[in-house]
Amino acid sequence: MTGLRLLLAGFGHVGRRLAELLDRGFPGVEATVVGVTTGSHGAWADPAGLPPGRILELYRTRGGFPQRLDTLEIVRSLDYDVLVELSPLAIAARGEPAIAHVRAALARGRHAVSANKGPVAWAYRELSGLARERGVRFLFESAVMDGAPVFNLRRHCLRGLGIQALDGVLNSTTNVVLGRMEQGAGLEQAVAEAQAMGIAEADPAADLDGWDAAVKLAALANVLMDAELAPEAVLRQGIRHLGPGDLAAAGRRGRRIKLVCEAARDGGGVSARVEPRELDPAHPFARLEGADSILRLHTDLMGRISILEESPGLDGTAYGVLGDLLTLVSPY
Amino acid sequence: MTGLRLLLAGFGHVGRRLAELLDRGFPGVEATVVGVTTGSHGAWADPAGLPPGRILELYRTRGGFPQRLDTLEIVRSLDYDVLVELSPLAIAARGEPAIAHVRAALARGRHAVSANKGPVAWAYRELSGLARERGVRFLFESAVMDGAPVFNLRRHCLRGLGIQALDGVLNSTTNVVLGRMEQGAGLEQAVAEAQAMGIAEADPAADLDGWDAAVKLAALANVLMDAELAPEAVLRQGIRHLGPGDLAAAGRRGRRIKLVCEAARDGGGVSARVEPRELDPAHPFARLEGADSILRLHTDLMGRISILEESPGLDGTAYGVLGDLLTLVSPY
Repeated sequence: MTGLRLLLAGFGHVGRRLAELLDRGFPGVEATVVGVTTGSHGAWADPAGLPPGRILELYRTRGGFPQRLDTLEIVRSLDYDVLVELSPLAIAARGEPAIAHVRAALARGRHAVSANKGPVAWAYRELSGLARERGVRFLFESAVMDGAPVFNLRRHCLRGLGIQALDGVLNSTTNVVLGRMEQGAGLEQAVAEAQAMGIAEADPAADLDGWDAAVKLAALANVLMDAELAPEAVLRQGIRHLGPGDLAAAGRRGRRIKLVCEAARDGGGVSARVEPRELDPAHPFARLEGADSILRLHTDLMGRISILEESPGLDGTAYGVLGDLLTLVSPY
Repeated sequence: MTGLRLLLAGFGHVGRRLAELLDRGFPGVEATVVGVTTGSHGAWADPAGLPPGRILELYRTRGGFPQRLDTLEIVRSLDYDVLVELSPLAIAARGEPAIAHVRAALARGRHAVSANKGPVAWAYRELSGLARERGVRFLFESAVMDGAPVFNLRRHCLRGLGIQALDGVLNSTTNVVLGRMEQGAGLEQAVAEAQAMGIAEADPAADLDGWDAAVKLAALANVLMDAELAPEAVLRQGIRHLGPGDLAAAGRRGRRIKLVCEAARDGGGVSARVEPRELDPAHPFARLEGADSILRLHTDLMGRISILEESPGLDGTAYGVLGDLLTLVSPY
C-alpha cells in the first residue's frame, strides 16, 4: 500500500472519474482507497486498501458495494489519511451530514478534501479553525467552479490584496436554461433540455430557485472575504418567474439576462444577493454561454480580476480534488 | 535598516508607485532602498539605505538623483537582497541590458524581481536555471498583464495540468486603438487619443507592429508551456494596415477585430503568432474594451480557463512587484 490512504464519502460521477484519473496516474499523487460509502449503492472498507482502479472494477462488476456501513461511523473508526467528501449537497439539511463527516475527520487529525460545498458555506470558520488546531488541512477547491482556481487563486496568487466585493455567474443550469429561453423555449422545455444535456439534475429546484448559487456565493464570501455568511442570509431570487418573453424583451434592448451573484462589504459585514439581472452587452458576464462560469474579484490594488471557466466537464471537478490531494503531498 | 534591501533598476511610473505603496505599508513586506538607477535622471546608492518614502522625496525635491553610476556596475558591487528590474523593455537590443542586470544579480546569489518582460522572453531558461543553481528566486509576475496572476496561476493553482495551447489579447494600446477606430477614428487620430489617455507611448511602434504582444507571448510560452521561443520566432502581424473601414465592415458582420496572441504545441515545439483576427461575438475575447487584457489556457483536464483583467492601473503593476517581494519574504 503506497501513497495517500483515501476514504471516499460518495462515489457518484465525480468519485468515479476521480478513481479513473488516479488509476490512469496523476503526477505526484499516489493513492490507495481504504473505504467507500455511497447513499444507495452500499459501502466497502478495508484497512488493507485497494488501488483506485480495483475499486472501480468492484463497483462496476457488482453495481455497488457489498457492505452496509454508516459513513460517520467509518469516518470515526477507519484508519485513513484523507477523507474525500463527495456526497451530494443537502440544502434542506444545511450541509449535513457532510459537515459532520468533515468535522469528525479533522477532529481525528485527518485531512479533509471536500467537493461538497456545504461544509464551506455553512461551517467554514469552525472547520478551518479545527484543521489549524489539529495541524491538518481542510481543502475544497472543487466546491465552486469545479477545479478552476478560485480559493487557491486568493490563497496563493493575490496575497496581500484587499477584496471589497465579488460577483459572478456561478450556476450552470440556470445559464443553460436562460440561453434556451432566449431561443424561444418555455421554462419547462428549457429545463428538460438541460436535463437531457446532463447539466440539470432530475430535481432542478435548487438551481431554478437560486439556492445552488446562494450556497456557492456564501462559500466564496466566507473564504475570500472572511465573511460569516450562511446561504439563508443571501437575498435570493431565482428564475422561475421568467419566460421567453422576458428574454426576448431584454434582447430587443440589446441586453441579456443572467443569474448574477454578488457579495459586497457592508459596514462591518458582507451582504450578498443572487438575482436575475439584465446586463449590458459590454458587461463581462453578458457573453457567457451554456455551462460557462465566471467569478470576478473587486480588489483594492488590482482593480477587477476575473476567472472564467468555459464548458467544464467531470474531469474538471475531479481535477479540483486531485489538485487538493497534490497540495497535501507537496504543500507550498 | 529593516526588511529587504532593494536595488531598483529604473524609477519611472512603476518604480515610483512601488515606492509609494511600500511607504504606505504593504502587509508582510518591509523594505529599504539601497540603490536606484535611472536612464536619464541620475542614480544613487548607499549601503546604509533609505526608506522608500525618503527616496521618493529625494527624487521629487531634486527632480532626479545626484550620482552618475553604471547600473551593471552597481548590480555587481552593491550589497543588496533583491534586484528589482524596472527598466523599459528594449526590443531592438533583445531585452538587454535588463538581462545582463538580472544575470549578474542571480550570479551573485541575489534574488531578482523583474517587471521588464525582456529577461523572461529572451532568457528564461538560462536565468531560471541560474537562480535554481544559486538557491535564489527569479520572479516576474508583473511582466505580463500587470499584477494579474498568470505565472503564479500556473505555478500555484494549476499544478499537474497539461497546457496544450494558450491565447489572449495582451496589448492595451492596440485594443484601445481598435476600439477608437470602431467609432470611426483613423489610425493616427486613434493613436493620438490613446497617447492622450496615457495608454500608448510616445513611440507607439512596438505596440502597433505587434512587437509588445510578441514579447509577452514568448514570455508566457516559455514559462507556461516550457517552450524555448524568442520573440523573433513569433509570426507577427500588427494593426497598421487596418483602418476604420475594416472595423466597420467587421461590425456589419456582427464581429469585432482584436489583436490576438496564440501559442500552441506543434510537434516537439511550440509555435506562436500575433495577428488581428475577426472574432465572433460569442468569442470570449470579443467583449474586451479599452485597456482590458485576457489570457486563456487550454488545458487537458480543466478545459479552457481564462484570467481577465479589466482596465488596470499603475497600482496593478506595482502590486505584481509587491507580490513577488512577499513571495521572497514568505515563500510557499
